[in-house]
Amino acid sequence: MNDLHAVNTILADHLRIVLVGTQHPGNIGAAARAMKTMGLSKLVLVAPEKAPDRDTLAMAAGADDLVERASVFASLAEAVADCRWVLGATARNRRIQLEPLHPRDAAQRALVAAAAGPVALVFGRERTGLNNAELQLCHAAVHIPSDPAFSSLNLAAAVQVLSYELRCALLGDAGSAGQSRTPPPTAEVAAHAELEGLFAQLADTLDQIDFHKGRAPDSAMRKLRRLYLRANLDSADVRLLRGVLADTQRMARIAGEASVDKKIR
Amino acid sequence: MNDLHAVNTILADHLRIVLVGTQHPGNIGAAARAMKTMGLSKLVLVAPEKAPDRDTLAMAAGADDLVERASVFASLAEAVADCRWVLGATARNRRIQLEPLHPRDAAQRALVAAAAGPVALVFGRERTGLNNAELQLCHAAVHIPSDPAFSSLNLAAAVQVLSYELRCALLGDAGSAGQSRTPPPTAEVAAHAELEGLFAQLADTLDQIDFHKGRAPDSAMRKLRRLYLRANLDSADVRLLRGVLADTQRMARIAGEASVDKKIR
Repeated sequence: MNDLHAVNTILADHLRIVLVGTQHPGNIGAAARAMKTMGLSKLVLVAPEKAPDRDTLAMAAGADDLVERASVFASLAEAVADCRWVLGATARNRRIQLEPLHPRDAAQRALVAAAAGPVALVFGRERTGLNNAELQLCHAAVHIPSDPAFSSLNLAAAVQVLSYELRCALLGDAGSAGQSRTPPPTAEVAAHAELEGLFAQLADTLDQIDFHKGRAPDSAMRKLRRLYLRANLDSADVRLLRGVLADTQRMARIAGEASVDKKIR
Repeated sequence: MNDLHAVNTILADHLRIVLVGTQHPGNIGAAARAMKTMGLSKLVLVAPEKAPDRDTLAMAAGADDLVERASVFASLAEAVADCRWVLGATARNRRIQLEPLHPRDAAQRALVAAAAGPVALVFGRERTGLNNAELQLCHAAVHIPSDPAFSSLNLAAAVQVLSYELRCALLGDAGSAGQSRTPPPTAEVAAHAELEGLFAQLADTLDQIDFHKGRAPDSAMRKLRRLYLRANLDSADVRLLRGVLADTQRMARIAGEASVDKKIR
């Protein structure tokens, strides 16, 4: 799925971020900003300790619209009542009923579920996360693989990582590590004959600038061929390199004539 | 690679996060926190607008040790001089020479390069990012696929996403969606300073063989840099190419003397 409009529509319409019991209003704004950078727009607040305020808008930095349109509920159950799939973020491997998913897998599954109806990603309180009753309301858990020695991602950072994974999943880009987008290095790779023309001129040039100095020329040329082949040259690259070689050959010719000159004199 | 100790050792020893020209000291702390949650610990500051202060430590929230141990340099070139691979984060698809990598691919390649030596992930100023001269020092660019309509990830959020991808790559968990870790591009990539030495000599040589003939030299050099960066040169390649350039320069010198000679005669 690569149509950007379709991507944004799904992200905007079917995926909501639910923040439960947020303690600092600034974090609501920072989470909104994180969501918006990834094309998400439905923010839901469950019983925030303080209502959104000036700090919220300052941290939203342009994502104020998400904060202003945010729905507010008294309980998580109400906030996710219409959802097809509810995913709870857990800070660490707590004694929870649910085996936590990797964010990448969670994103994939969220998209599949989003085709059937609304999907919620639920984030708990800054200090204590989701309580057991709230986790019970989730269909699955997701855990960001942080360093166990320092696992305190802040709320907005966790929202950022999961929103990023959702967007990557929707764009279908697992990177080349996944499958699809193996990096076709550049535009058009030069034709075989063009490359051979370059290599022939390079070999001549090396002779003319007396590069080999009695050594076997083959070894250097083999290495240079390999090096240029790795660069996936296109036709313009070949022309550029041949231009440099042509000027080098011109210099070598002038230098050669000069030394003949000197000998004659 | 699934041994947690090994994962943390590689992250800690070979990967550094470089923040260039950071404007708000608080962002340095927030970036340190983001790094530390993912097991990264080498923070490098290049010419920050203000030195780390109380805001920095407040935002670091337990990652103060990274801030206290951070190295500070006057220029990006110095900060990455010993690096095998330098990756620059770009906010959007600017007219840059380098095709930006997906964060997932960038993380894979960073790990491969980290096996050979230090690797730097470079983040620019909050408002304006990296300038062109700084991007020129990067071997590759990485772009977080944000919504083009609202692409302003804050600095710490960008550091969080890329650090997260590094950790996922090292843990070998692409989730079940990914799986196969891309094969290592090459053996030992040349150090940053070696490549810059090559490029400087190449620029001199182009002048000496009168390659530009009045045209702006920048465009050709940009293309040549890109071409050689794609080739993943190792130290032996760099020596070979510099040998060819040295002989070219020798010819140009003889030719230059000859033409002076002729004029004198």
